[in-house]
Amino acid sequence: MTAALDEQWKAHRLRVEAQLPLYVAAHADFPETLRESMLYSLMAGGKRLRPVLVLMAAEACGGQWQEALPAACAIEMVHTYSLVHDDLPAMDDDDLRRGRPTNHVVYGEAMAILAGDALLTLAFEVIAQHITDKSVAAECCLDLAKASGPVGMVAGQVADLAAEHAGEATVEQLEHIHRRKTGRLLCSALTLGGRVAKANPDTLLALARYGNAVGLAFQIADDLLDVHGDPQKLGKQTQKDATAGKLTYPSLIGAEASRSKAEGLIKEACQAISGMGEKGKPLIDMAQFVLSRDH
Amino acid sequence: MTAALDEQWKAHRLRVEAQLPLYVAAHADFPETLRESMLYSLMAGGKRLRPVLVLMAAEACGGQWQEALPAACAIEMVHTYSLVHDDLPAMDDDDLRRGRPTNHVVYGEAMAILAGDALLTLAFEVIAQHITDKSVAAECCLDLAKASGPVGMVAGQVADLAAEHAGEATVEQLEHIHRRKTGRLLCSALTLGGRVAKANPDTLLALARYGNAVGLAFQIADDLLDVHGDPQKLGKQTQKDATAGKLTYPSLIGAEASRSKAEGLIKEACQAISGMGEKGKPLIDMAQFVLSRDH
Repeated sequence: MTAALDEQWKAHRLRVEAQLPLYVAAHADFPETLRESMLYSLMAGGKRLRPVLVLMAAEACGGQWQEALPAACAIEMVHTYSLVHDDLPAMDDDDLRRGRPTNHVVYGEAMAILAGDALLTLAFEVIAQHITDKSVAAECCLDLAKASGPVGMVAGQVADLAAEHAGEATVEQLEHIHRRKTGRLLCSALTLGGRVAKANPDTLLALARYGNAVGLAFQIADDLLDVHGDPQKLGKQTQKDATAGKLTYPSLIGAEASRSKAEGLIKEACQAISGMGEKGKPLIDMAQFVLSRDH
Repeated sequence: MTAALDEQWKAHRLRVEAQLPLYVAAHADFPETLRESMLYSLMAGGKRLRPVLVLMAAEACGGQWQEALPAACAIEMVHTYSLVHDDLPAMDDDDLRRGRPTNHVVYGEAMAILAGDALLTLAFEVIAQHITDKSVAAECCLDLAKASGPVGMVAGQVADLAAEHAGEATVEQLEHIHRRKTGRLLCSALTLGGRVAKANPDTLLALARYGNAVGLAFQIADDLLDVHGDPQKLGKQTQKDATAGKLTYPSLIGAEASRSKAEGLIKEACQAISGMGEKGKPLIDMAQFVLSRDH
């Protein structure tokens, strides 16, 4: 990672992490256990890739990160809700996430379902309330809903569960799953930032192309890290996917072809935003990082 | 029920029921099982009280029901998602709803969780996309999110689960639960209709007061029907609450005091919208019906 990207990422991450609990605390008559359960997962750390991309995209389009903060926090709430629900016993049945017990292990299944529901709903509340231009707010609600709903992230999870039951899949099916389960929301991070900065339709299209390509590359890089990564740097076990018999790019097309596919996608992403010039530099650095990351 | 109300209710209900599947079918690449699971619960019938109130409120404010149809369908999606999640084994663990097996019994827990998530998300998509005035669309997203999120419906469900664990409660606690679990969403039905018709702040306030009072009265009437209702007309078992040891108004303050409380609330509701004159007549009829209903 370049020093400039590292610095900007950290600054944006801290802005998001300072704002998130304020949105959750904004209502005085929030039930206390619900608040705790929501914050437990929302403040569990992580790279904050999606909200950081929202702020970076807004700046790349000539906007201010401050204006984009509600959308950044909203997308992190949606991402968090999806993790909480995916970890449930009826879904992936995971007991650990980022080295800590998952939400339902700590608060029980009922509260984990409700905390997820509440985070998803609060995401739309935050956008509708705190994005000052109400026409932009409506556009952002639409963008986020499409990315996370029944043709976006939820569709990806449905396809993922179906593929696990079926036991085998083609690389086309895997790509279909990834593009929906993680790709659409990551793409939305870019376009939300662009919308808040009132980017024109051409720029929004370029951001969407960048987001789609980086989103898939990120997933392939994740699969590769599970095969070749250093468990210490990653903060989680490797070889987990292979042991669980999970569908991955390396298992389907091999590590070399996976790496070359990811490289092609990153090239595609950088080309898509080449018209943004100097302002697009942080996004170019980000795309390069996805390829080279070791955690 | 007056003949006029009966006719209008039926007409609005059919409009909502004709539109709902169109919104779910709007996306070509919807996963088929997800669509089935969403439609199974969305098209399970029922009174359609909330969406009908949206359309009636819009008309009472001088608007057209057509403009209010997206908001009406959205609120029914939110109501349906809440039923699907409430019925889950980890929550109320109900196998039957409206005489049919519940969603998770038919489609499995994972799909029921995802169908609920998808319905909630689609509700915001429909509002943001199909309400033509984007500033009104953003207001409606905010209204619906507040009513259904962590200070609204979800808070009510959290309080309800907590009270069940505690085993006993006061009438104040019961009112707190009902106002959140069912009251806020019902109130939102009224204000969504008003917002689409561009009602002024005073009218929105009157509609909210009406909605809050009718919402609580509706719940008390529900409790009373469980004690005194005719199972055939209701299409469900009575005495279920008492058997399950569930908190109800009759169990806490007796049937007579419950009825008189409901009557007071209906009076309050009618007074709140008295300024609307002739246009408010259907809402007055609706409030009276809540009190006299036998199903």
